[in-house]
Amino acid sequence: MQACVMRSGELVVDEVPDPRPEFGQVLVRNVACGICGSDLHFLRHADRMVAMSEELLPSMGVLADMAVPRIDLSRDIVMGHEFCGEVLEAGPDTTAPKPGTRVVSIPALLTTTGVQQLAYNNDFPGGYAEQMLLSAPFVLEVPNGLDSRRAALTEPLAVGLHAVAKSGVTPRDAALVVGCGPVGLAVIAGLRAAGVEVVVAADYSAARRALAAAMGATEVVDPKVEPVVEAWRRVDGARPLVAFEAVGVPGVLATMLRDMPPGTRLTVVGVCMEPDTVQPFHAIAKELSVQFVLAYSPDEFAGALRAIAEGQIDVSPMITGTVDLRGVPGAFEALAHPDEHVKILVEPAPA
Amino acid sequence: MQACVMRSGELVVDEVPDPRPEFGQVLVRNVACGICGSDLHFLRHADRMVAMSEELLPSMGVLADMAVPRIDLSRDIVMGHEFCGEVLEAGPDTTAPKPGTRVVSIPALLTTTGVQQLAYNNDFPGGYAEQMLLSAPFVLEVPNGLDSRRAALTEPLAVGLHAVAKSGVTPRDAALVVGCGPVGLAVIAGLRAAGVEVVVAADYSAARRALAAAMGATEVVDPKVEPVVEAWRRVDGARPLVAFEAVGVPGVLATMLRDMPPGTRLTVVGVCMEPDTVQPFHAIAKELSVQFVLAYSPDEFAGALRAIAEGQIDVSPMITGTVDLRGVPGAFEALAHPDEHVKILVEPAPA
Repeated sequence: MQACVMRSGELVVDEVPDPRPEFGQVLVRNVACGICGSDLHFLRHADRMVAMSEELLPSMGVLADMAVPRIDLSRDIVMGHEFCGEVLEAGPDTTAPKPGTRVVSIPALLTTTGVQQLAYNNDFPGGYAEQMLLSAPFVLEVPNGLDSRRAALTEPLAVGLHAVAKSGVTPRDAALVVGCGPVGLAVIAGLRAAGVEVVVAADYSAARRALAAAMGATEVVDPKVEPVVEAWRRVDGARPLVAFEAVGVPGVLATMLRDMPPGTRLTVVGVCMEPDTVQPFHAIAKELSVQFVLAYSPDEFAGALRAIAEGQIDVSPMITGTVDLRGVPGAFEALAHPDEHVKILVEPAPA
Repeated sequence: MQACVMRSGELVVDEVPDPRPEFGQVLVRNVACGICGSDLHFLRHADRMVAMSEELLPSMGVLADMAVPRIDLSRDIVMGHEFCGEVLEAGPDTTAPKPGTRVVSIPALLTTTGVQQLAYNNDFPGGYAEQMLLSAPFVLEVPNGLDSRRAALTEPLAVGLHAVAKSGVTPRDAALVVGCGPVGLAVIAGLRAAGVEVVVAADYSAARRALAAAMGATEVVDPKVEPVVEAWRRVDGARPLVAFEAVGVPGVLATMLRDMPPGTRLTVVGVCMEPDTVQPFHAIAKELSVQFVLAYSPDEFAGALRAIAEGQIDVSPMITGTVDLRGVPGAFEALAHPDEHVKILVEPAPA
């Protein structure tokens, strides 16, 4: 089959072996797959990401073998973990939705040696390929005739819903979302779904601020024009503040620790892969709390699919482009310019 | 009166003006006053501490005037905020305990323009002086005939009790305390008082490890011999982990984010006044949460006094020396060597 392969730090479209479903697996045709900021970062800094994951091994205890991916960067990798597929075939003796059913899944594969992460994996291709293998127990049917493009947004929306849940925010709080890329937009949608009435969203990009408003932000602010904390004081300034770091580049965490008001509960959902130099005293003097979050539970993933399918959350404003497999390298370049795109979907094998 | 004055970055014993109580104030004779690590840091890095507090002003909103001390480092400062005094005289029309009553107070003074921090203050001397002024509403009588030395430990114990309360720890959790100086020891005492059954305490100093055991740590560990997380796995490894950073020097926060197991709730109670370079990804991958804490509420301060006076918490192992006013500069030097001392009490005007 055709796939867009990460090989020696480059993206190339090439033939790769056809996957064959074994017991417990389901073969799907990839209909739509979102490009994630993590993929851009992995393409550029895979060696650093692998090294950093290995640094964590001693702290992981019995989880180490399951939770930390072992990746060989000298071998091919097919990324893509925000996918919606159509069932082609189930493995032998495997119960699965019938061929033609459209499905989504958390990007994980059950094997006899543990749970493998899909998409950052040498042995199993992710969604930037015509076909991929899923684990039958993780497969969820796309309900209500929801189109595949919006269904592919289940994964990034789940990231936002999880961050909102871990933040402990309630409708009595005000929220501040710094960064309106896909993660920040998903957080905004999650906050409104959780009944939060004051959602101040900040981004340097006018296009992204407009999307933040479309996703439910009640106030948008350009940090070049008005400091974000001043914007919060202007529109509310009274309710307890729950803030979200949804940028994930060095300096943002340090700046938020310096600028957030006393008692702010900060949730870090932007995935910063580089060191950041913070002043602990800034956080100490204001008794800030910081919850770092990653990913979501299978339940939260299923909840994200339901929220989209039942019309509670409209993710369509986030989709700013579609490409075929040959368009993936160009889409990666386009996504480096935040004013142009938010979420580009790859359609490896459209209907 | 005599005082140990911070002047041009040095400690000198000199005559300073006698304080006179005004309306709402109580004049006390200082019987015992603990030397705090913050005082050591302030003596060496006062300019940096003042600058850092000023950086925080924009984030403080209406609290800015009250919460951030304005200090003129070209003028005298008399430090000392862990004091027990004996009432000499109340200000005019002021209700206060009668002369001879021993009292403690939070180190704060009510004025018509706000609440002033005592001890880091140009206009009001702290406990390294023969006498000082307190605000009558903050004064608490020392109960049960408790001696003044232990009563002076009310303040540092309150710091530990507050950190334990903010950590959200319950008897179902295990605790790890990194750093067994006065703050770490107060945290250990607070954890045991809160019913926590597994308290692993780590310090490079054998003397401090012995004190940690005396204060109730159920396991002590030398991080040079055994990594602290391995010690926790050895003695428990099953209950949710609540960890305390009670060192406050650069690198400790970064190391704990790297080493703590997934899901750890970390409370930062050590006051690090210098930048620390962290890897946010370490905390993200393990979904750590970090609660930064400072000081205590007036209620927690009163609770600390009660816990000491009623014999619930024995703080006497923490007291490793006493000096008079002339001994303060030498005590500051001795405290720089953590194997010798934990808490040295100054007795400016003993009975």
